[in-house]
Amino acid sequence: MHNKLHDIRLLAIDADDTLWENQVNFEAAQHLYCKLLRPWADEQTVRDSLYKVECRNMPLTGYGTKSFTLSLIENAIELTDHKIPAEKIHEILKIGYAIMNQPVKLLSGVQETMEQLFKSQKYYLVCFTKGDAKEQEDKFFKSGISELFSNIIVTSDKHEWEFRRLCLYYDIKPEQIVSIGNSFKSDIHPIVTLGGWGIHIPYNRLWQYDHIEEYEHDHVIQLQQFSDILQYL
Amino acid sequence: MHNKLHDIRLLAIDADDTLWENQVNFEAAQHLYCKLLRPWADEQTVRDSLYKVECRNMPLTGYGTKSFTLSLIENAIELTDHKIPAEKIHEILKIGYAIMNQPVKLLSGVQETMEQLFKSQKYYLVCFTKGDAKEQEDKFFKSGISELFSNIIVTSDKHEWEFRRLCLYYDIKPEQIVSIGNSFKSDIHPIVTLGGWGIHIPYNRLWQYDHIEEYEHDHVIQLQQFSDILQYL
Repeated sequence: MHNKLHDIRLLAIDADDTLWENQVNFEAAQHLYCKLLRPWADEQTVRDSLYKVECRNMPLTGYGTKSFTLSLIENAIELTDHKIPAEKIHEILKIGYAIMNQPVKLLSGVQETMEQLFKSQKYYLVCFTKGDAKEQEDKFFKSGISELFSNIIVTSDKHEWEFRRLCLYYDIKPEQIVSIGNSFKSDIHPIVTLGGWGIHIPYNRLWQYDHIEEYEHDHVIQLQQFSDILQYL
Repeated sequence: MHNKLHDIRLLAIDADDTLWENQVNFEAAQHLYCKLLRPWADEQTVRDSLYKVECRNMPLTGYGTKSFTLSLIENAIELTDHKIPAEKIHEILKIGYAIMNQPVKLLSGVQETMEQLFKSQKYYLVCFTKGDAKEQEDKFFKSGISELFSNIIVTSDKHEWEFRRLCLYYDIKPEQIVSIGNSFKSDIHPIVTLGGWGIHIPYNRLWQYDHIEEYEHDHVIQLQQFSDILQYL
């Protein structure tokens, strides 16, 4: 099975919800946010309009908690027809900052698996993630496993272009890359399109924005948990 | 003069206020912001407290317009003792978004100079800038000169560590790098510390946060304008 997986030089390992918990923090924040807006709208209305604001802002502000916090504020103002008091907006700001201050919780098996990969010295181990550079680098260095990686590269998004750039950096070909992550859209589809490999480890939560129709492919391996990658690498 | 400048492999070229205008947009935004807060505080009070909020948030939120916008909102709420109406906060949000939507204005001589460097094929030409990845990449691609560069690398800050990482990417030594930029703190000091070279082109505006005591150094060239670099490269 997958005996074609040879001459691999680099593992491009996603961060959020692959190495550590992330989506759960955003969901907890949204829960507090909805509670705060309860005098003006029910939870579903708040969530739906927030998602619309997020999508509208995405081309301008991109991924990450700062962008999310701006959307929280904007949506609260619009949804309450400018009636929300500044005190509540202050609380919303704090909800955003609290996400950024969250300790990093590694997912089960990650520490041991990364240690094994590090010891094997077979691949460049790159934490390759989309998002806010500052935020992702902070989490990486707080994670306690940064020393097990060769590098962290944060890009504003994860399309074919960013994987091509990764090839340029390391002077390798796409088929020498295995991209590992929970998002079929960002971690699997682009690298497979380029001729590389994807190991998809779905997480029990996926941000609505990251949904995409998944497909079977000769270059895609589906796994249950992070430690399973050692069976292939 | 500077005859030691040989075996250079890579030019690390800063973006904001080196290739294109930046600080002027933030100053214009601050001006609108102060006007908006005039019912509560005079301009100097607003600016001083904003700078304090920015410095306080910096370790958490880092550089960039999203971070700046969050600080604008936070400062407005605190300075007005929660009395500012949501409508005004909406306007502040728009001031932030307007910076992000600003067209990119190249500084004088940049286009022609980059064309010359590109044609000469003597160096890797890397746009190497700190800030928000999404924001800096957007400006880069809007600038009309992205094709003249080998790459853009956005880091959350520009310290020695980031220049060392640049060396790793391109498999070169610090002394083969010339860093070019307007900020002595980010563009000159770290690379010179590592044994590399700096070309300092001060701009007529410098963000307070980027101030540092400057010094003379055998590896530092001081220039008036971007096109002057061709005398050395």
